[in-house]
Amino acid sequence: MVGALDRAVRQFSRLPGVGRRTAQRFVYHLLRGNPEQAAALAEAIIALHRDIKPCSVCHCLTEHDPCEVCRDPRRDRTTLCIIGETSDMEVIEASGKYRGLYHVLGGLLNPAAGVGPEHLAISSLTGRLSQGVKEVIIALSASVEGDTTALYLVKLLKPTGIRLTSLARGLPAGGSLDHADKVTVGLSLEGRMEL
Amino acid sequence: MVGALDRAVRQFSRLPGVGRRTAQRFVYHLLRGNPEQAAALAEAIIALHRDIKPCSVCHCLTEHDPCEVCRDPRRDRTTLCIIGETSDMEVIEASGKYRGLYHVLGGLLNPAAGVGPEHLAISSLTGRLSQGVKEVIIALSASVEGDTTALYLVKLLKPTGIRLTSLARGLPAGGSLDHADKVTVGLSLEGRMEL
Repeated sequence: MVGALDRAVRQFSRLPGVGRRTAQRFVYHLLRGNPEQAAALAEAIIALHRDIKPCSVCHCLTEHDPCEVCRDPRRDRTTLCIIGETSDMEVIEASGKYRGLYHVLGGLLNPAAGVGPEHLAISSLTGRLSQGVKEVIIALSASVEGDTTALYLVKLLKPTGIRLTSLARGLPAGGSLDHADKVTVGLSLEGRMEL
Repeated sequence: MVGALDRAVRQFSRLPGVGRRTAQRFVYHLLRGNPEQAAALAEAIIALHRDIKPCSVCHCLTEHDPCEVCRDPRRDRTTLCIIGETSDMEVIEASGKYRGLYHVLGGLLNPAAGVGPEHLAISSLTGRLSQGVKEVIIALSASVEGDTTALYLVKLLKPTGIRLTSLARGLPAGGSLDHADKVTVGLSLEGRMEL
């Protein structure tokens, strides 16, 4: 394969979940299209690191510092939601059920991969808690890393006396019981609600 | 979502098979990585249209004109393989079963989408046939568009008296050529049928 083609295929292959075949499809798609479309994609990629920085308050990735949520006077400043990545913020915002602030750890604890507390935005978290926070919602993925991180945070934050909660575990909306795995069913039984 | 993030997500979403969620994964992956990786991808994308042009002989996309295959004195100049896209050439080359030349149509006939013979590299094909070609292999995807294009080519080329063959139907029905594995492609080349 010629140089420029091969280089583009290799670069696309570095994206998560993109194999060589998919990367080739992307490259030929761009080559079939006009140069302006390719240039627009390249420019958008360059702009990411140029225009987007972590918010100095919550550490989410943003074009404005502080970010839109931290600057918004209508947000409830007594509630802090701890999340792993900025993308989790979008999912929670899309639910329309949360009006508090966020704190983005920038990852999850993973001792096996060498990710310790010092690699996450944890020291700045304790500083924020003294500013009138009444509840901390730990909203991490239901994975080994998420649970490890949650456990660490609970140990760290328990002495502050601030209310600590975590996202409910149970059946996903629209999920039928006979398609749920046994762990999820067990969790939904343990966390059953009064009707 | 902020401007630069949203712009990058929208640009990635224009790639084939990439939805909004996948585009977001790509964007956050690039943001977590260093600026050099993002810049390398952007530069590789820019280089595509800057460095790659159609070969003036076979119309494949290449950095050199004529392309490597057309320039190669060891290739059999009496056999011409008609393909839809440059990517199909890579699949056939990978099979290791073909030593002739190629002719890239730059698409397939699709009357419903307004793609007629005038949009494909067909007029230059007839010119090439007078240069000692003894066999034309029609190697198009096993799809409605591929069959339509093959039928059109058979009608056009039959009067020349040149041997016409097509790939054996070892390809799965409805399968596009650039998703086939190289062994299947090789078998379908060996079992090509008289038309």
